[in-house]
Amino acid sequence: MSNPEQELIQTYFAPLAGDGAAGLMDDAATWVPAPGMDTVLSTDTLVAGVHFIGDEPADLIARKALRVNFSDLVAKGAAPCGYLVNLGLTTAQDHGWLKQFSEGLARDQEEFNCKLLGGDTVSTPGPLTLSITAIGEVPSGKVVRRGTARAGDVLYVTGTIGDSALGLEVLKGRCKSVDDAYLIDRYRLPRPRTECLPLIREFASAAMDVSDGLIGDLEQLCLASGVGARVNADLVPVSEVVGSLAALDPGVLIRALTGGDDYEILFSVSYKKADAFEAACTLDVHNIGELVDGTGVAVSTTAGEAIEFPSTSWSHFD
Amino acid sequence: MSNPEQELIQTYFAPLAGDGAAGLMDDAATWVPAPGMDTVLSTDTLVAGVHFIGDEPADLIARKALRVNFSDLVAKGAAPCGYLVNLGLTTAQDHGWLKQFSEGLARDQEEFNCKLLGGDTVSTPGPLTLSITAIGEVPSGKVVRRGTARAGDVLYVTGTIGDSALGLEVLKGRCKSVDDAYLIDRYRLPRPRTECLPLIREFASAAMDVSDGLIGDLEQLCLASGVGARVNADLVPVSEVVGSLAALDPGVLIRALTGGDDYEILFSVSYKKADAFEAACTLDVHNIGELVDGTGVAVSTTAGEAIEFPSTSWSHFD
Repeated sequence: MSNPEQELIQTYFAPLAGDGAAGLMDDAATWVPAPGMDTVLSTDTLVAGVHFIGDEPADLIARKALRVNFSDLVAKGAAPCGYLVNLGLTTAQDHGWLKQFSEGLARDQEEFNCKLLGGDTVSTPGPLTLSITAIGEVPSGKVVRRGTARAGDVLYVTGTIGDSALGLEVLKGRCKSVDDAYLIDRYRLPRPRTECLPLIREFASAAMDVSDGLIGDLEQLCLASGVGARVNADLVPVSEVVGSLAALDPGVLIRALTGGDDYEILFSVSYKKADAFEAACTLDVHNIGELVDGTGVAVSTTAGEAIEFPSTSWSHFD
Repeated sequence: MSNPEQELIQTYFAPLAGDGAAGLMDDAATWVPAPGMDTVLSTDTLVAGVHFIGDEPADLIARKALRVNFSDLVAKGAAPCGYLVNLGLTTAQDHGWLKQFSEGLARDQEEFNCKLLGGDTVSTPGPLTLSITAIGEVPSGKVVRRGTARAGDVLYVTGTIGDSALGLEVLKGRCKSVDDAYLIDRYRLPRPRTECLPLIREFASAAMDVSDGLIGDLEQLCLASGVGARVNADLVPVSEVVGSLAALDPGVLIRALTGGDDYEILFSVSYKKADAFEAACTLDVHNIGELVDGTGVAVSTTAGEAIEFPSTSWSHFD
């Protein structure tokens, strides 16, 4: 009676289903946000060999796919609530893989207090492909956009930049650091900055998450807002590991600033609110520069030396 | 400043963007349903070579991907409003392909009165892969489920069954009919039955769309509802073309009843409401049987001859 696709869904995914998902025995989910909240939708596709190496443990693949989307939501001031998952499976994804994948989802559902609402599972002759559509909530009318920054706003970024890009270099055997495990973990498991949600909602004039490289993403924020930016590279927060690599090779800083996969939040705060923001902020957030009239992103050191980039971000379509 | 991925999005997709999509220059979309309406979400992935042949015109690929999702929404009593599109592109999808693809989306946006809200575009070494997440609205609390049918309910299906499965046979050179173009068109371009929305909302006790084969999908509806079904194969509506093929080869009827890709709506109506429904219904809807106590789907002819099926539906994971 029940077909193999349905059995797979019932075994591995139905236990993760939330209200509105009808136990994953239906064609569609219903979604009703809490009163006073708007729905925010973000979707990202990850392809094995392109967005991850492919031999990572399945639970980490699941968690990374969820988290890159949750990171987008957080940058918009939205708290993650639910998600849809589209899986294009190859013959390499056996029951053991699916079990581990669903355990990864379960773990992050708990960590981020959200539920599976639906999805689709198909077979593909190509590489493993997964799309997550994340569903979040933001107080009505209060979504934080990319295109709403103004000249004069102060620029901030959360966490540390470049760990993930260097982690990928380590995994590819092109780099050796004092703490490879830390860098690899940063590459494999993004940390959506949900702890910053109250501050982003209250203070950010514009925000986005850093997924394709800090400088290239900042260029996108500037383009959308019709402003330029000045960044002091010495103020960009880096971990001790990246700092020690950069001390040996100046190319490491370039890689850190443009490498991507950081999943930190880049945001601006109006000059008038910046003092209040810094007084209220007890989190790991750093001022890295400011927005200015004009276009483009100028990066220099404290000593005033300009830094040029061969390419400011990673793109699928060069 | 703007990277190639962003340029591609701005050229082909930004003109399709609706309210809440921020011109596709942001990480996420906002979605607010009309007052008194709940949101319904459906998502389907299509892989070239699996769900479509791959050499179809790009506008038809776009429209089929949208429509298989809109069909899911309609089966839930929800009107399509918007969608997200995730594209995994190979090197074969050049600018001409993308232009044609976006024209297909534009055409169906107009036909179904809905807008693009967001998505993601990545490169893949595998086959062209696209996922659509469709966003619809249903009056609050009135979603029509699969699992809410009862024994005694009357069973209906819209349109005609089997055209699409036979269209695929024609495309594969395994079948020749009196109107191949009709069958191929039915395979390539599903017709979500939005015209049936008022009736489904008012009368259906349960509903689903027929995507994996009428009998197999009915088994799923029965399983979810905890009932069995009796179907009279002679009452299942088929087109003249399929009827003439079936007259020559009894295997055609089996193929029609289990082949899939129909995107018609299968639904049940309580016995008490069936007369009122049939009086109200001026659309192309046919009574094909009834739901009964028990499990499983029994199919027979008017003469009482039982019909057996080697396999009742198409699955990705046999």
